[in-house]
Amino acid sequence: MRITLIGSGNVATQLGSAFQRSEHSIVQVISRNEKSGIALAGKLKSDFTIDTKDATKVDCDLFLFAVKDSQIVEVAKEFKNTDKIILHTSGSIDVNVFKNKFKNYGVFYPLQTIKSNRNINFKNVPICLEASNSNTEQTLFKLAQSISENIFMLNSEQRLRVHLAAVFANNFTNHLYTLAEKILHQNHLPFELLKPLILQTANNIKDKSPSLQQTGPAVRNDKITIKKHLQLLSSDKELQKIYKLINDSIFKTHNKNLNSNP
Amino acid sequence: MRITLIGSGNVATQLGSAFQRSEHSIVQVISRNEKSGIALAGKLKSDFTIDTKDATKVDCDLFLFAVKDSQIVEVAKEFKNTDKIILHTSGSIDVNVFKNKFKNYGVFYPLQTIKSNRNINFKNVPICLEASNSNTEQTLFKLAQSISENIFMLNSEQRLRVHLAAVFANNFTNHLYTLAEKILHQNHLPFELLKPLILQTANNIKDKSPSLQQTGPAVRNDKITIKKHLQLLSSDKELQKIYKLINDSIFKTHNKNLNSNP
Repeated sequence: MRITLIGSGNVATQLGSAFQRSEHSIVQVISRNEKSGIALAGKLKSDFTIDTKDATKVDCDLFLFAVKDSQIVEVAKEFKNTDKIILHTSGSIDVNVFKNKFKNYGVFYPLQTIKSNRNINFKNVPICLEASNSNTEQTLFKLAQSISENIFMLNSEQRLRVHLAAVFANNFTNHLYTLAEKILHQNHLPFELLKPLILQTANNIKDKSPSLQQTGPAVRNDKITIKKHLQLLSSDKELQKIYKLINDSIFKTHNKNLNSNP
Repeated sequence: MRITLIGSGNVATQLGSAFQRSEHSIVQVISRNEKSGIALAGKLKSDFTIDTKDATKVDCDLFLFAVKDSQIVEVAKEFKNTDKIILHTSGSIDVNVFKNKFKNYGVFYPLQTIKSNRNINFKNVPICLEASNSNTEQTLFKLAQSISENIFMLNSEQRLRVHLAAVFANNFTNHLYTLAEKILHQNHLPFELLKPLILQTANNIKDKSPSLQQTGPAVRNDKITIKKHLQLLSSDKELQKIYKLINDSIFKTHNKNLNSNP
């Protein structure tokens, strides 16, 4: 397939590189950021332009919008009408943002935390697809299949819910790592201490639901340990609040489970 | 070394097996739970008794208390005085629980989530040690070295803080996985979707601080997405509260960082 990338950030870089490794051609990179746009076009051996106005004149099969959520509508406005496929890559933007202007459009949402600095292998990365019609759907499916074995057809509401779940599983989890690191560093202890535990905790979900693997003082209602922890956090009311809230949520979740599965 | 295990749960099973693989002898298993105690003694080819009264008569070098936090003091009371080394394995119990009765005592705290069903390789597991005197410390160090390359000398206060940090990094994180799974299942979506993301998020901390890797709507203050998420959570006030609190904490943490590192 012949692909135009709009954007030159992490998602554009990683998807563009993966498509090219799978023998697609990136014919054009369009980006307002001249520096990163030229760099990406150079890497992918494609043309570069800063201007979206004549984008649709270029001979290609689809346009992949890998821009910030807030820019998708704006960039779509600048595009001339076209029958070519228009895609965005966002978890939280409805496919219908393209409805009034285009005929063949959809979403290509890779569910992974994407950075530009090392090549991502998308083989196991879930790709969530949505399309405005079945022809477009087939094209998207082929494109997704060329880089991943893990493809899901989701409508916009489902995708938003997946995105929300991903915020809990990734963004919030990473913040808990950050808070744990802060507790250690405040006491001149190295974060190294926690790395094997963090990796093991994540690995444990591979073959068993996390709801069946909860450990710690909250689930066993160990009030003495909880009290000691809250005391240590007494000088940081925000951390204490987070501790209390998640602690309570763990206790309630597992007591509910016990009641419903006696 | 010749070791007596007190307890027959996950920690006793895993540490006992690891010590035995490193050519120590488990001479005795003492447990109130006759069934699991006899099973563990069978596995380790050691004697079994349910009674702590005559425990110290047995020819061994140290006694490892791998019992619930709440039972450590009680079991120690039942023990006769001895010069042999008495250890517990808890992150949150002060070493001084042994002070009035014993001379040679300490803590052997493996920082990992421990289940009995598969053999743990302790090679990379941090072992946190504390001892009542330097002779005991040397013995503990040798014992820890025989199963792990990752040994830390921590006093009781430091160990409690590490334990608190581990609650954030492991228990709370696992609960966020559970909440993410709940959001997906309520919408008939498979948890499989999130597994690659969860594994990648954990792996990313190997060589870079999590504080430098925060992504998501909170850190970029993407109010539109945050509003959509809160709306989806409107029927679950508890989840909504957790979302808001962690979201705010992410925003504050990274704005503070920006201010202090302009």
